[in-house]
Amino acid sequence: MSEPVTLINAFTVPVEESERFLRHWKDAARVMASQPGFVRARMHHALADDAELRFVNVAEWASVRQFDAAQGSPEFRGAVQRMLDDPDLHVTARPALYQVAVDLHPGETP
Amino acid sequence: MSEPVTLINAFTVPVEESERFLRHWKDAARVMASQPGFVRARMHHALADDAELRFVNVAEWASVRQFDAAQGSPEFRGAVQRMLDDPDLHVTARPALYQVAVDLHPGETP
Repeated sequence: MSEPVTLINAFTVPVEESERFLRHWKDAARVMASQPGFVRARMHHALADDAELRFVNVAEWASVRQFDAAQGSPEFRGAVQRMLDDPDLHVTARPALYQVAVDLHPGETP
Repeated sequence: MSEPVTLINAFTVPVEESERFLRHWKDAARVMASQPGFVRARMHHALADDAELRFVNVAEWASVRQFDAAQGSPEFRGAVQRMLDDPDLHVTARPALYQVAVDLHPGETP
């Protein structure tokens, strides 16, 4: 499939582990940003500390195939493993692939 | 606060109610797209039916104040109420406001 695809990964992270989590995430994101097919990623941080989904990454890729290849790279797997192995980090991740169903601009009718 | 803000709303929706849900959501989204401060919204649909977060709306607003005003409009409240009152729809929504913590482009280092 060569259509664009969006990875959305919503994270639950204890407030006091936010900086530690972001450091790990940036290590993994740097790997992804160097891979073919990467278009853009935005990591969002909830304004409220009691949000269930405190961090949400929205990453656009040119195709599922290229995303899969990037995710399978040893560098990326290593970065993810280091995050999983960190005993001071307690993160729940909910990664899934999405297609854009509606793209809405001011005054438009969806 | 006049900084840009992103509403992310992750929905859990039974697969067979997807079209019904999207119809309701579009009614509410049309109202939002006509309000001052609305920048853009993208509704994402999970490729996999068993994803926990089957629909994710990522909507950019010029400010929290304008988002709050739009959300308080009678038209928007009416559209949301009609969705909540639909006995054939079983939706869990997780709306929260976010700031962009990292905006990453190809080859960049976050």
